[in-house]
Amino acid sequence: MLMTADDYRDSLRAYAPRVFVDGERVESVADDPRLSPGINGVGVTYDFAHRAEHAHLMTAVEATSGKTVNRMLHIDGSAQDLLNKLEAVRLVCKVSGCAQRYLSHDALNGLFQATRRTDHTHGTDYHQRFLAYLHDVQDRDLTLGVAMTDAKGDRSKRPGQQANPDVYVRIKERRADGIVISGTKAIVTGAPYMHEFLVMPCRTHAPEDSDYAVCCAVPIDADGVTIVARPAGRPGEAAAKFSARYGQSTGVVIFDDVFVPHDRVFLAGETEEGGFLTTSYAHHHRQSCIGARAGFGDLLIGAGALMIEANGLDPDRHGHIREAMVDLITITESFFACGVASSVYCVDDPARSVMPDPVFANIGKLLLATKIYDMHKLAHYVSGGLIVALPGPDEDHNPETQASLAAVLAGREDIPAERRLEVSRFIEDLTASHQGGWYSVISLHGGGSPEAMKREIWRNYPLAEKTDLVDQLLDRGIYDQGQRVSRQPGRCCVRGCEAPRRITGEAAE
Amino acid sequence: MLMTADDYRDSLRAYAPRVFVDGERVESVADDPRLSPGINGVGVTYDFAHRAEHAHLMTAVEATSGKTVNRMLHIDGSAQDLLNKLEAVRLVCKVSGCAQRYLSHDALNGLFQATRRTDHTHGTDYHQRFLAYLHDVQDRDLTLGVAMTDAKGDRSKRPGQQANPDVYVRIKERRADGIVISGTKAIVTGAPYMHEFLVMPCRTHAPEDSDYAVCCAVPIDADGVTIVARPAGRPGEAAAKFSARYGQSTGVVIFDDVFVPHDRVFLAGETEEGGFLTTSYAHHHRQSCIGARAGFGDLLIGAGALMIEANGLDPDRHGHIREAMVDLITITESFFACGVASSVYCVDDPARSVMPDPVFANIGKLLLATKIYDMHKLAHYVSGGLIVALPGPDEDHNPETQASLAAVLAGREDIPAERRLEVSRFIEDLTASHQGGWYSVISLHGGGSPEAMKREIWRNYPLAEKTDLVDQLLDRGIYDQGQRVSRQPGRCCVRGCEAPRRITGEAAE
Amino acid sequence: MLMTADDYRDSLRAYAPRVFVDGERVESVADDPRLSPGINGVGVTYDFAHRAEHAHLMTAVEATSGKTVNRMLHIDGSAQDLLNKLEAVRLVCKVSGCAQRYLSHDALNGLFQATRRTDHTHGTDYHQRFLAYLHDVQDRDLTLGVAMTDAKGDRSKRPGQQANPDVYVRIKERRADGIVISGTKAIVTGAPYMHEFLVMPCRTHAPEDSDYAVCCAVPIDADGVTIVARPAGRPGEAAAKFSARYGQSTGVVIFDDVFVPHDRVFLAGETEEGGFLTTSYAHHHRQSCIGARAGFGDLLIGAGALMIEANGLDPDRHGHIREAMVDLITITESFFACGVASSVYCVDDPARSVMPDPVFANIGKLLLATKIYDMHKLAHYVSGGLIVALPGPDEDHNPETQASLAAVLAGREDIPAERRLEVSRFIEDLTASHQGGWYSVISLHGGGSPEAMKREIWRNYPLAEKTDLVDQLLDRGIYDQGQRVSRQPGRCCVRGCEAPRRITGEAAE
Amino acid sequence: MLMTADDYRDSLRAYAPRVFVDGERVESVADDPRLSPGINGVGVTYDFAHRAEHAHLMTAVEATSGKTVNRMLHIDGSAQDLLNKLEAVRLVCKVSGCAQRYLSHDALNGLFQATRRTDHTHGTDYHQRFLAYLHDVQDRDLTLGVAMTDAKGDRSKRPGQQANPDVYVRIKERRADGIVISGTKAIVTGAPYMHEFLVMPCRTHAPEDSDYAVCCAVPIDADGVTIVARPAGRPGEAAAKFSARYGQSTGVVIFDDVFVPHDRVFLAGETEEGGFLTTSYAHHHRQSCIGARAGFGDLLIGAGALMIEANGLDPDRHGHIREAMVDLITITESFFACGVASSVYCVDDPARSVMPDPVFANIGKLLLATKIYDMHKLAHYVSGGLIVALPGPDEDHNPETQASLAAVLAGREDIPAERRLEVSRFIEDLTASHQGGWYSVISLHGGGSPEAMKREIWRNYPLAEKTDLVDQLLDRGIYDQGQRVSRQPGRCCVRGCEAPRRITGEAAE
Repeated sequence: MLMTADDYRDSLRAYAPRVFVDGERVESVADDPRLSPGINGVGVTYDFAHRAEHAHLMTAVEATSGKTVNRMLHIDGSAQDLLNKLEAVRLVCKVSGCAQRYLSHDALNGLFQATRRTDHTHGTDYHQRFLAYLHDVQDRDLTLGVAMTDAKGDRSKRPGQQANPDVYVRIKERRADGIVISGTKAIVTGAPYMHEFLVMPCRTHAPEDSDYAVCCAVPIDADGVTIVARPAGRPGEAAAKFSARYGQSTGVVIFDDVFVPHDRVFLAGETEEGGFLTTSYAHHHRQSCIGARAGFGDLLIGAGALMIEANGLDPDRHGHIREAMVDLITITESFFACGVASSVYCVDDPARSVMPDPVFANIGKLLLATKIYDMHKLAHYVSGGLIVALPGPDEDHNPETQASLAAVLAGREDIPAERRLEVSRFIEDLTASHQGGWYSVISLHGGGSPEAMKREIWRNYPLAEKTDLVDQLLDRGIYDQGQRVSRQPGRCCVRGCEAPRRITGEAAE
Repeated sequence: MLMTADDYRDSLRAYAPRVFVDGERVESVADDPRLSPGINGVGVTYDFAHRAEHAHLMTAVEATSGKTVNRMLHIDGSAQDLLNKLEAVRLVCKVSGCAQRYLSHDALNGLFQATRRTDHTHGTDYHQRFLAYLHDVQDRDLTLGVAMTDAKGDRSKRPGQQANPDVYVRIKERRADGIVISGTKAIVTGAPYMHEFLVMPCRTHAPEDSDYAVCCAVPIDADGVTIVARPAGRPGEAAAKFSARYGQSTGVVIFDDVFVPHDRVFLAGETEEGGFLTTSYAHHHRQSCIGARAGFGDLLIGAGALMIEANGLDPDRHGHIREAMVDLITITESFFACGVASSVYCVDDPARSVMPDPVFANIGKLLLATKIYDMHKLAHYVSGGLIVALPGPDEDHNPETQASLAAVLAGREDIPAERRLEVSRFIEDLTASHQGGWYSVISLHGGGSPEAMKREIWRNYPLAEKTDLVDQLLDRGIYDQGQRVSRQPGRCCVRGCEAPRRITGEAAE
Repeated sequence: MLMTADDYRDSLRAYAPRVFVDGERVESVADDPRLSPGINGVGVTYDFAHRAEHAHLMTAVEATSGKTVNRMLHIDGSAQDLLNKLEAVRLVCKVSGCAQRYLSHDALNGLFQATRRTDHTHGTDYHQRFLAYLHDVQDRDLTLGVAMTDAKGDRSKRPGQQANPDVYVRIKERRADGIVISGTKAIVTGAPYMHEFLVMPCRTHAPEDSDYAVCCAVPIDADGVTIVARPAGRPGEAAAKFSARYGQSTGVVIFDDVFVPHDRVFLAGETEEGGFLTTSYAHHHRQSCIGARAGFGDLLIGAGALMIEANGLDPDRHGHIREAMVDLITITESFFACGVASSVYCVDDPARSVMPDPVFANIGKLLLATKIYDMHKLAHYVSGGLIVALPGPDEDHNPETQASLAAVLAGREDIPAERRLEVSRFIEDLTASHQGGWYSVISLHGGGSPEAMKREIWRNYPLAEKTDLVDQLLDRGIYDQGQRVSRQPGRCCVRGCEAPRRITGEAAE
Repeated sequence: MLMTADDYRDSLRAYAPRVFVDGERVESVADDPRLSPGINGVGVTYDFAHRAEHAHLMTAVEATSGKTVNRMLHIDGSAQDLLNKLEAVRLVCKVSGCAQRYLSHDALNGLFQATRRTDHTHGTDYHQRFLAYLHDVQDRDLTLGVAMTDAKGDRSKRPGQQANPDVYVRIKERRADGIVISGTKAIVTGAPYMHEFLVMPCRTHAPEDSDYAVCCAVPIDADGVTIVARPAGRPGEAAAKFSARYGQSTGVVIFDDVFVPHDRVFLAGETEEGGFLTTSYAHHHRQSCIGARAGFGDLLIGAGALMIEANGLDPDRHGHIREAMVDLITITESFFACGVASSVYCVDDPARSVMPDPVFANIGKLLLATKIYDMHKLAHYVSGGLIVALPGPDEDHNPETQASLAAVLAGREDIPAERRLEVSRFIEDLTASHQGGWYSVISLHGGGSPEAMKREIWRNYPLAEKTDLVDQLLDRGIYDQGQRVSRQPGRCCVRGCEAPRRITGEAAE
């Protein structure tokens, strides 16, 4: 059953989570105006699955069940799937700023790979448990929050060395029927309006910290769960032309002796596979981030063009304005291209799914993380200083000033001042409000900070191929790829050819 | 008489300006909490003039009167003065974010040069009028707002071609005892809490637009003046660790048939000198911007270092964190260095004052304008994602969550969570709130947009010297600077030597 | 018949072109050591077509003939073809620096589209002529030079306004059996060792310059053709570890009353279609440039890694070295990704071929053009200053110094000094010799200068889609893609889906 | 006695060094054409000292002797001295590319400080020895080479751990009358045509490596010294429009049991002071590098402007060309400004000399090191691809091609082709020849690689001042500089004021 946005909002009423926003207990998540922009954002992923023109992007057939599911819950089986997911994320984020629900996809795909791998090594049965859970989630068309980033405490110490054990989530007790977890996840996107959390480790833990290698599914209103969240976007602010409607909440989620039955536990102490899960999730997620921020780029490009128009400037005459727009386009589309390449050169997983190529996925995320600031700069560049100097919206209806302001704040004659102000505030909202700050920081650090991407790029790049090449040219002046093979060639699933690609992990299997 | 910050706030009560903020008429500027952060910022320039350790920077002796005046009102007579002003601006802005009052200095210095020049060409007596005004302003220790950026309307048209003449300020009537002006200045920094406005043209006007070449001083509460302003900073917001105390208001200022007596008119139709005034002011102002943003850099550098500490990270072990800090320092100090060089290679004006070297001043402003975004990025980079994900300050006192949040949100053991949150919010305030957006945009566009700086750099660079050099090397293989002289060598006033420097304008005089 | 590199070299003996290198007439192009590196480079494209492991990349079946041809002469029929071509170019260029022959591909594909279009508009029969020519070229496995960049003379004037008409190639006479052309093409890659030249216009000409809109095929030794060329690479230089073997010649080609029979004329005065040809060629070529420079990136990455090793540095311990390598990888793979995306989102041509997506192809070329300098910087960064300070290779055999130099110039114990010197010289050759300079400049300006790419990006970007999006969000708060359609959706041939893509030109046809 | 360039060349005949270039023993350094461009470069520093217009920059009065000496040998006593030195270096380098002799200055100044400091700590008498040596060098107007960069061997090991001890220079024997040194310095600028070498340690050595902490003066032809060098520039190459005349040789210098009498030994085992010497030298040298590369910038700016002119382009019409020129100017002048600031905020040394401010000097060098590549890019950008595609100079006199090439290769009508070619080759020479490569790499790594600068910036930056500032603002909302003083305020010698500045080392003395 594919829900609509309205169905989704209604479905939240079935849950009774303990949520605080701005120091107050939230009575009904579905009805609290402070969370409404976040619910609207997620809602786009539901409504668009019902539109014919988006069906090929927003829905897909799950291989293991044969059912049509929302793309945000689908396990990718081909390069085409990855490309569709990438475009789907761009689509929903260009409308909502950040639709958040792609996190569900990323975690489910990471788990699909990791449970298979853990079973293969440890003889466990996580994959079957997970498949049952997956199909249930798809049937109910849920939205899952990713509870991954631990509070961490003193960053120079391991989890087991922390003064306060609750700065990381851990298995506190193992019972016959399940496990009990405790600890804090510090940054959970969309926390208050999820159906469930997927609790995941945020890094490879040392063997002595095996209790921290835990992954499980927890309903948002399970006993012992507390959510302390920020409002989503800028609800109720008249100047918030975009983020009064669409925004994102982030929350601290505290797990206080939360019981999880075995059928919802997908990792419980296997530290190495915990690391694999973290990484696989990260590759999926970083590709999704690319699509998300490309959608944000679409908003800036469109708004920048409208602002130029409203100011009465002609990009064909003002070369520096055109140049700035081309820069904005170049940034957006060049990191998006990395998302495309990570689809085309995807990696086959033995679990019969595919993962984005790690090098391209990490490069794309790395580029967007650092270039989001240039995107803001360029949006400001083409808009002019007015966007932060305009009188606020309360002034629009002040009888003593309204007429004269309207008369002088217009730009081009055929575009009323009101329109120019509206576009100005739209850009201010996206780039110079606290929501703009959120987009910056979340692009930089969300899905891993730049240093993490750099390490993955370095770890995954086929460097030996390149040194082979130069070795051969130095030794013999010519190159014969067949001579020394440093990387396993694979089949590239988007195409029928022999292009080189990586196969994850268990090559000898 | 050098006022204190308290004196300054009191002095504002003597004025009764027509000010609107957020759609409401302001009763008393001095007492309105929405304007308080702006008044505090300006206040720093008053208080620091009384501190012994800052006296050499914050005060100076005016050559034409022999009196000690506030640096923000002083006419620069030497390279040392320019250096002191640069450092003074950095000093007050590292405390206040942006102390605003340096604008008074920049406008007074531009007028000192321009009135002298206009008199020389047109036989007028503006310079004497201006000197009298200057001394009065210095004696009363006023703060003057710069009303320069016209509303502009359709930017593809000249002032005289606009549908609504009020989109530019102009002389509407010339009377025996003065002039009447009308029109709108769109972005006036600190508008509500100035003592007077210096109305200035924002560009060189065509001869047929000579009525727009007008410069005069207008008390903030003159008949016909209306100010529509934004609140200064983020007054009253608990999370605003910095900008609840210090901030800046910007306002639209509408002049509706405002009469100005002759002794306050400093330009009235001389279009070419209007252009000179705009440019001279811009050179002074761009150098000041350098000092201001270097002060902002000081805040980010200090806050970044505290955040790293609170997170328990050691820059000596984490190379990428140290690297980011070094980048932040490099950006800040390299544009500041351009301010220093623009002092050292200053330009003598026939009016017996000095102007910052235009090339260095414009380069410094250009660098800060575009690199402010990198500064934000680096501050975010070293701080981590928490700065936008923390629960808000209302949560700090929520009995149901406070204890557990405090327990898990600490970083290093010896630094309490409360401190870490405080630093986080300080950085969020400066870089990821609407105040952060304001700092970005105002750095980019304030004092002229990047394209304006590029044009000045191009216009002022001694290109012929360089082509001479290459010509000679190509023709004769050697270089003899004496052979072809393309630029007038001058005396460099910071030093006793013959270093090349420019003399403005009337060399033949 | 697919030739080998040896066959290709032999085949050049059948031609007797008038070639000058360094002021001397070349007797035999095939035997002149100064041109040998260039012939070796092209030769790679021949030899690799015979290797089984490269067959899928280096050969393809031509749709209009059913024959297997060299990829460098193939008309692309699918996204997969474009991807294979992109990878094929990377492959041959990572071995040869720049294999040059992809220019043949790019011109043939541009002509395939343009002749079809010209016929459609003007009722001519160029396409049939061209097909016959194409099949002949493929059957004989030729290499074609692209003679496109006119000498241009005074760049501020049109061709018809030039003092010397020979600064552009033009139709001087139209005869019953063909045309006579005259003029100069200033930068022709590989000129001396091509089989034929494809003469092409370098821009859209004005209607009054219709004689300059000429495209035709001219054998290298046609009467009236003179080639004045540089040596290819650094032939005979002992220090030239790479470019003594592989290099590129560029030549000025003077056409002095050269007769071209009709069956070799593919455009003769149709100025608008001349512009289309220029642009189509450019899109194909810019995508090829991406592959070429990615191959160059492979060389730098491999050599950099070897140099780090020889210096005894460990990138895992020296974070700044690893960071530089990651930057080098990021640059290379991010522009390559644009080549991949330009394949995936390719454009269908009514001639039944495909063209790379212009936006992605131009962005990729733009990035490589400007980032080639960063690539050099990073290669230098990881290598150290020794690469330009080493004694030259003549010193290697100096009995008085050899032993002591060998003893002290080693780095890591297990890597002999000789090896370290070899790698150093390899990097110097690629990045700090005149060959390195050539790679820089040709990356920047070859295939069009950055400004040209920016104009194409701007011209081709679906900006209206983005303004629609923001318009709708502003007006209604929601977005419905179906409401206003600004771009024709198409089928994406790499996938079975509905992804948006552009169709060139004759939509109404 | 101030020598002229001719005197200097003659003076080299008094030495009989063992020099090899390209595998051959050099008979007479003064007469070998391969070294001539280097001698010409140094010569500029001699000739310009005799020109009246440069006297204030090129000569100075030595405080300890009262004699007028060449600026390149002068000990800086004031900020003005540093500024003059900076400008002097720019002057001689804009004519010669790199006049090399400023290295003498930098080493002498480092030694002036370090010998004083060593004596203060260890009770030695190095400073007096050094003064005697200094005055002799000044009297004889010598040029001293800096032999600093050891061969280093395996970079992961300390000197004492190397398999071959000769990869670092060390004291092999201590005799009654002096010391015997052995080892290799790998990169010595201008080695063959120096009068003497100043052997210096290249880093702080560990106490157990105290034999490597050695500094002494060695005549170029001392027994046991062998120099293996590259030719200077591109001697004898017709296309080398600049570097056939001016260039730089670098050499490996092997010390094989070289005896040095005590009066020429300035450090012999004091490891900590060896580190201080390295660092002090580096600060002086990095400031000099700033002047040198600004001079290189002058050449590129001038040549770029001439090339634009020859191509018939008008920067006022072609915005992107003007923009590139402004970028080139901005890069050059912004790092130069750091040199100016490092003069203004110089550091007083107890030896009664001044040192450039380390932060600004290192920032300036860091900027030029990385931006030299952008400078090359911009020079190429404004010049067009022709600079690497032009036929070589041998073609200029080929009767069969000369006339037609001349006819078509002209740009603007009033500028002959010959001139355009000349300017093209000038730019190619500076930026796309192996000389261009040399300028890049030497800018990047000469005077220390970027990582070294970053460490110095970090080490010297008054970070505590900034954390104090933020601490106070957080704690009390206001700032009182006097409260917590983290840095010793000093007198700034360029000005009479109290500006903060650092005093090196022995504050308690």
